[in-house]
Amino acid sequence: MRSVELTSGEALELLGGVAWGRVVFSERALPAVRPVNHILDDGHIIIRAHSGAAILGPAGAGTVVAYEADRIDDADNTGWSVIVTGTATLVRDAEELARSLLYPWIIDAGMEDVARIGTDIVTGHRLVRGPR
Amino acid sequence: MRSVELTSGEALELLGGVAWGRVVFSERALPAVRPVNHILDDGHIIIRAHSGAAILGPAGAGTVVAYEADRIDDADNTGWSVIVTGTATLVRDAEELARSLLYPWIIDAGMEDVARIGTDIVTGHRLVRGPR
Repeated sequence: MRSVELTSGEALELLGGVAWGRVVFSERALPAVRPVNHILDDGHIIIRAHSGAAILGPAGAGTVVAYEADRIDDADNTGWSVIVTGTATLVRDAEELARSLLYPWIIDAGMEDVARIGTDIVTGHRLVRGPR
Repeated sequence: MRSVELTSGEALELLGGVAWGRVVFSERALPAVRPVNHILDDGHIIIRAHSGAAILGPAGAGTVVAYEADRIDDADNTGWSVIVTGTATLVRDAEELARSLLYPWIIDAGMEDVARIGTDIVTGHRLVRGPR
């Protein structure tokens, strides 16, 4: 197995082609991760978040998070992985909320807020068969 | 869509039934995530890690990480997600290394070290169709 680096453009295109990933953040100084659905909107990742979630930092003022999506084949381990690091901020603009068309993935989890994650740092790898 | 909580036993069984997940840690005070393959061994998660990686903390002394695995259907969004929080430590014991039989997933990434992650906190959810 060999890892081939993707350009940030290729990586964002793969991310935009799938419906969910995992948001990675700190919660009470511990590493935390939650699977969520997402859309790409104007170069930002839009996700639902729990109201008042650690994802958004104090008072939704914005905090740095990572976002990961991948598709890796169970049979042969080939596939891709994309990791974005950026600031998550609460989306307050009603028009942007309406435009996002993002349905809450898990109904009973109280995902009332919408967060926008900047795509400041985008890395991606494709896992392909082959020697070193 | 509805989220049904799993027992830690059910969650670990699902985790042990798949070959890879994502390790979540802090790197230079920023949230970081890497997809890796894993095995379950005697109640611990065993993964390959880059030599000297942030996953292992200073001098491999151990640091708290999260580990996530999921299988979610692209068509209907049903599936499951498991999140483990525990301390990652460097595996130094040659016998344990041999027993782990963990092949490095990505050959060219220099994954020389093996890390053991404790399953101190295990949570899991199954996403099922249905109303709230």
